[in-house]
Amino acid sequence: MNKIEIQTIGYIKCPELSNDELKGQNHVSKIEINNALAEGLKGIEEFSHIYIIFWMNKISKTSLKAPFSEDPEKPSVGIFATRAPIHPNPIGLSLVEILKVEKNTIWVKGLDAYNNTPVLDIKPYPYWSDKKLQVVKDFNIPKWLQKITGNQ
Amino acid sequence: MNKIEIQTIGYIKCPELSNDELKGQNHVSKIEINNALAEGLKGIEEFSHIYIIFWMNKISKTSLKAPFSEDPEKPSVGIFATRAPIHPNPIGLSLVEILKVEKNTIWVKGLDAYNNTPVLDIKPYPYWSDKKLQVVKDFNIPKWLQKITGNQ
Repeated sequence: MNKIEIQTIGYIKCPELSNDELKGQNHVSKIEINNALAEGLKGIEEFSHIYIIFWMNKISKTSLKAPFSEDPEKPSVGIFATRAPIHPNPIGLSLVEILKVEKNTIWVKGLDAYNNTPVLDIKPYPYWSDKKLQVVKDFNIPKWLQKITGNQ
Repeated sequence: MNKIEIQTIGYIKCPELSNDELKGQNHVSKIEINNALAEGLKGIEEFSHIYIIFWMNKISKTSLKAPFSEDPEKPSVGIFATRAPIHPNPIGLSLVEILKVEKNTIWVKGLDAYNNTPVLDIKPYPYWSDKKLQVVKDFNIPKWLQKITGNQ
């Protein structure tokens, strides 16, 4: 397979949080962008939400099958149909709420990434194309996910 | 800056489309995943929408300022506050609709990427956390984007 080289643009900082606390949606994380790139954040505080793309450098294995429990109600599905971090590339994607921006630092809510995780990119939410915002409110999800989330 | 090595998991195929057609949301693109990874797609067709993370290998420059026109109504903002492809890492992120899945190939609607673009990851939409789906319907966007998209 072809290999691509990518740069770390900053790091996620949340040293005081346990791994359990990180899984929730209500904690605050800091994103510290390299000082040399701080100018790229200008105006980002006018968005309430942004995507963070990061590199899950603590993940050392990969699998094509989702690591589901023994629960027979959870079917065996492929890794790309799940949020499990053991994709072929351990790229993380989170949609987070901006709380504050100051120089090269963004405080956000809901970023489920460990302390010192490398950040690869930041993008505004929602996307737009053809002068239209792209907010997907109508969608289908598998039965197993409907059960987990109570959206039946 | 630290460098990370990442693998191409497949390619976007849309050889018959012009660059102008690619910018729209209504064309169909194929995503061909490496045969060795096809098992990872199992069950993905039960989602109506997925995120595609790709590598915009035709982008050869980068900038911290958004490449806006001379229009004084479009303020100078940082690159991370825009969808311009010239971020420090040329990572593309699109939310697309699945039309069909067959073996290692996914046909999707709305993927604004050139033919032969390397694919880095595929993720389901919407995300979920704490047993809740994360669909962001309430958000703020900058005034300049409200003007562009007519969401004033």
